[in-house]
Amino acid sequence: MTTQELVDQIQKKKSFLCIGLDTDLDKIPSHLINEEDPIFSFNKAIIDATHHLCVAYKPNVAFYEAYGIEGWKSLERTIKYLNDNYPEQFTIADAKRGDIGNTSTRYAKAFFENLNFDALTIAPYMGRDSVEPFLSFENKHTILLALTSNAGAFDFQTKKVEGTELYKEVLKISKSYKGADNLMYVVGATKAEYLTKIREIVPTSFLLVPGVGAQGGSLEAVCKYGISSNIGLLINSSRGILYASSGKDFAEAAQEKALQLQSKMQEELEKRNLL
Amino acid sequence: MTTQELVDQIQKKKSFLCIGLDTDLDKIPSHLINEEDPIFSFNKAIIDATHHLCVAYKPNVAFYEAYGIEGWKSLERTIKYLNDNYPEQFTIADAKRGDIGNTSTRYAKAFFENLNFDALTIAPYMGRDSVEPFLSFENKHTILLALTSNAGAFDFQTKKVEGTELYKEVLKISKSYKGADNLMYVVGATKAEYLTKIREIVPTSFLLVPGVGAQGGSLEAVCKYGISSNIGLLINSSRGILYASSGKDFAEAAQEKALQLQSKMQEELEKRNLL
Repeated sequence: MTTQELVDQIQKKKSFLCIGLDTDLDKIPSHLINEEDPIFSFNKAIIDATHHLCVAYKPNVAFYEAYGIEGWKSLERTIKYLNDNYPEQFTIADAKRGDIGNTSTRYAKAFFENLNFDALTIAPYMGRDSVEPFLSFENKHTILLALTSNAGAFDFQTKKVEGTELYKEVLKISKSYKGADNLMYVVGATKAEYLTKIREIVPTSFLLVPGVGAQGGSLEAVCKYGISSNIGLLINSSRGILYASSGKDFAEAAQEKALQLQSKMQEELEKRNLL
Repeated sequence: MTTQELVDQIQKKKSFLCIGLDTDLDKIPSHLINEEDPIFSFNKAIIDATHHLCVAYKPNVAFYEAYGIEGWKSLERTIKYLNDNYPEQFTIADAKRGDIGNTSTRYAKAFFENLNFDALTIAPYMGRDSVEPFLSFENKHTILLALTSNAGAFDFQTKKVEGTELYKEVLKISKSYKGADNLMYVVGATKAEYLTKIREIVPTSFLLVPGVGAQGGSLEAVCKYGISSNIGLLINSSRGILYASSGKDFAEAAQEKALQLQSKMQEELEKRNLL
């Protein structure tokens, strides 16, 4: 998917919601547990109930890997279901990979070609030659961790590197990577006040923003400081939507939560004349 | 496996060789391709031919993920084969994971419990709460990326963070993490001259050293600057051993290469009276 196609979808749906598929067998409704593939059954129901309210889905790969081969089958079924039925959705494998060149190429093939995801999250620690192999795939997007939403972000990311914070250095240096047009960035909503500085470095890059809701970030603040001329935001919600109800009405409850977020996003877009 | 058990194995085998199982269908001998699981068949032959010369095996998870579910089956078979037949081997999943707390816990369960690896490589960018979930597993080891062997390492790792290079900051800060006794570090052999500084910060921690051989690092230099009172080194070789021959004699050729490295390691240990 091209970035412009993603922007078009946002304008069509009046939503820049990304739903994080952090699907957890311990949390899904008990009536699904006896299904052949409970994780996929849960995801399918969530997707069918929410696809008109969001523009992206983001399976968190760890949740699938935790169940071994069965988990990988659920992941494959989920991405195939999305690509077959909702090809307009921007699909993100939240895998936070990153390795030396020939290994990065392997990961890129696994997620971009075999599974056919549109995007993949990547850790920047190993630098240029760990990121560029991902950037060479046309119309595929690499979402680099810049400033994450967790407490540990302050261990290194906000420390000053030769006069400027590490997360800013990641933004600046990555802009010079070959294929940088295919870069997006992870910026936690819990640090919305940093968005002004981030926008000075990457004025229109798409930012994937986790941490709204369960982790305490504010949608209004993220829009105030982070929205760009091409919108440039994907705001992720996972647990708040997936586990809105633990009963048989879980998909309806998820839809209701997604609708609440979509409505707020529509307001934010309308008041800035971005639709 | 405890760290002391690993040291005992090193002394028994007179080797601190780790063999990286970066198994690539494009590179393994053609006569294996028609086997039911060519990757596992290759790994099994390499392991059977080399286990007496090394103390650790390190499958590079990307190479398995690249083949989807079939690749995961090969990985599961490989680790099961190691655990069933060579339980004295220290097994490392080279996965370079790292995510927020609840996700890290998922990865830890996947690799430490379900697959029963002894160790896992982890990226430090997300800080304390992305690493500590791994450190809470008893007798399991978390190998944090400190200074990697690739060119991109100079993008961020060697930059000065508040007066000290980022990789040193990673070493220093991680020492205060809860469960830090279970930490080891990745330090590329291509940067052997940095090892003196690293040993000032982590005098006896085990260092996993990639980059000897194919990437140009020197075994002698790594030992000179990096060996500690408890040896504290695992030197990895992947391609140089795995693909020593592309013919039917690949396992014997791998054994020969492993023996060459083991002999050099024995020399290094003997001249320092570490056996």
